[in-house]
Amino acid sequence: MKLKVSTESLRDGLRKVLSVVSTRSTMPVLSNVMLTVGEGKLTLTTTDLEVAITTSMDAVIEQDGITTLPAKKFGEIVSTFSGSEVAIETEEDLTTHLHCGNALFKIMGMSHAEFPIEPALPDDHKLEFPRIELGRTLRKIAYAVSSDQTRYVLNGILLSMREGNFTAVATDGRRLALVEKILENAENAFEGDVILPAKVVGELQKLLDGEGNVTLRISDSQASFSIDNTVLTTKLLEGNYPNYRQVIPASFANSVILPRSTFAEVLHRVSVVVTDDSSSIKFSLTNNSVLLNASSSEVGESSEPFEISYEGPELHIAFNPQYLREPLKNLDCDEITLRFNDEYKPVVILGDEGFLYVIMPMRN
Amino acid sequence: MKLKVSTESLRDGLRKVLSVVSTRSTMPVLSNVMLTVGEGKLTLTTTDLEVAITTSMDAVIEQDGITTLPAKKFGEIVSTFSGSEVAIETEEDLTTHLHCGNALFKIMGMSHAEFPIEPALPDDHKLEFPRIELGRTLRKIAYAVSSDQTRYVLNGILLSMREGNFTAVATDGRRLALVEKILENAENAFEGDVILPAKVVGELQKLLDGEGNVTLRISDSQASFSIDNTVLTTKLLEGNYPNYRQVIPASFANSVILPRSTFAEVLHRVSVVVTDDSSSIKFSLTNNSVLLNASSSEVGESSEPFEISYEGPELHIAFNPQYLREPLKNLDCDEITLRFNDEYKPVVILGDEGFLYVIMPMRN
Repeated sequence: MKLKVSTESLRDGLRKVLSVVSTRSTMPVLSNVMLTVGEGKLTLTTTDLEVAITTSMDAVIEQDGITTLPAKKFGEIVSTFSGSEVAIETEEDLTTHLHCGNALFKIMGMSHAEFPIEPALPDDHKLEFPRIELGRTLRKIAYAVSSDQTRYVLNGILLSMREGNFTAVATDGRRLALVEKILENAENAFEGDVILPAKVVGELQKLLDGEGNVTLRISDSQASFSIDNTVLTTKLLEGNYPNYRQVIPASFANSVILPRSTFAEVLHRVSVVVTDDSSSIKFSLTNNSVLLNASSSEVGESSEPFEISYEGPELHIAFNPQYLREPLKNLDCDEITLRFNDEYKPVVILGDEGFLYVIMPMRN
Repeated sequence: MKLKVSTESLRDGLRKVLSVVSTRSTMPVLSNVMLTVGEGKLTLTTTDLEVAITTSMDAVIEQDGITTLPAKKFGEIVSTFSGSEVAIETEEDLTTHLHCGNALFKIMGMSHAEFPIEPALPDDHKLEFPRIELGRTLRKIAYAVSSDQTRYVLNGILLSMREGNFTAVATDGRRLALVEKILENAENAFEGDVILPAKVVGELQKLLDGEGNVTLRISDSQASFSIDNTVLTTKLLEGNYPNYRQVIPASFANSVILPRSTFAEVLHRVSVVVTDDSSSIKFSLTNNSVLLNASSSEVGESSEPFEISYEGPELHIAFNPQYLREPLKNLDCDEITLRFNDEYKPVVILGDEGFLYVIMPMRN
């Protein structure tokens, strides 16, 4: 294997693949990045057996080949290069020579024989989205994923594609966030539900940054996201996602419109005195005013009102402040709508188009 | 106690004092900040019994007084304020009311009775420096302080003031960094040595940022640094600092001038393969060239030459790469001078005016 590649492309490619490098000592080759050279391209691949990322870049190739290099050290070395081009040459004994400017490196590789390679997913079930739109959808719901390891399916995000609708859902049992969209070009699209592991969402978000489209392909046990020359493949969570529709109240007696950024700012201030994850914040809705207040035995008390436009029944209700803060922070709209029945029943927050959030009040 | 103070001044003052708040549970009041109100000023004080910081700001005072508030929470609350002015009022029962914009807080304080107060240091032994100059001096040597707890005095920086000279020294026994300056206005100045604890240096550096002067006052067991309305007081390390002069070789057979940033860059690249703190990097000086190379059994080998102007005896010497990197990074000069006798004897690096660095070579 012998090639030349632009330092910038190589650095950019390594940046994309390095975050899924495994540190499991049971399979040392997983801490390496695989370099595959052929057809005018250098391809980098990393995997931790659950998530794999592969990215390709143009290269000037003298000899095709394949090897693996210690991923973190290779990334570190390339990050120090100041020359514009890196020459890479791998010998039969698996040592790889790197040459950039006057710098020479001789790095010990490992055979690619045991490096796990996922076959590309079939093209028959695919969906295309603008990258920015999928990125925003994930941002608006991902915080609601459960971290409770005993409720395995809730550790993922449900992507449901049915009858031309796309729904993304996350819940931890105490609140639920969803975004619903109408699919464009839904003919021949995949119909069904898949559960994406939460830990892949962070990786995916980084790749979604920027213009253009992302193509989603789905098989029984895997999903892949293709973005330009990069493909992220992930195992899906197995199991049945709970019926989230039954959590959403069918009707509401009342509704109030609140300014999102003012609400978020006042909530942030008033919650400072709360020292305990199980503490609540009180939300009091009266004519043309909302009052938030909180207290804790360690610190003291806080309260702050803000003006709104509302005439209707009073509501005195308590929430986990974090459960209010997260949707307010991740939405883009100027105003949210809060729909409620009474201080015991679930409340719904609506904001950006297609977004819906259900939150259970706390009892005092 | 009752006053009004600008939110910005209060936030700025808290930023200065918050970092020395103690978390020792044996003396709960140390996790609080003391507020002293009088003579048109609000003064904030924190201490961890070794370092104390006090800072004053203008305030509109209705009633003098003194109290203490939980430092971190108070800082967090003030950081959320968006109004321009904070009203502070403390009641007899030690609750303090904070009022900013529409936000109201009621915070539990603690009596100041047990809060330790250091008396101001006497004015008879004082020295004045430009802040920026003392900050740079500390930056150029602080990395060389020992972290070995068994060599107590080496955990500090020596400040030596003798016969109109000011010398700052740090060493860990394997390398030594010093900066020497001629004192201006040295009449009546303090004569002698003090050892500043290393951990105060970081705090001090933050305060030294900016224009103007810093005044150093010294007593038997303490030193204080006054910067505008802020005073940092620290205990001094007790003990005798070793005679650092005897570490500096009296003469050198040879000397070479090296470009600082090129040297630093090549060193940074070549050291990437080093995985072990005890590994060395080889420095080979030949006619008009330096070659750096390194190797480790885990990663592989690296090497890179750079051109210089030199004709003289060859030198093949090994260094701990970190011990070379740190002075190169913290100096400001374009060129450094390396003075040496042979590959076994200490080498000296000269750079910025008054700076001197002694480094022991490693044996292979």
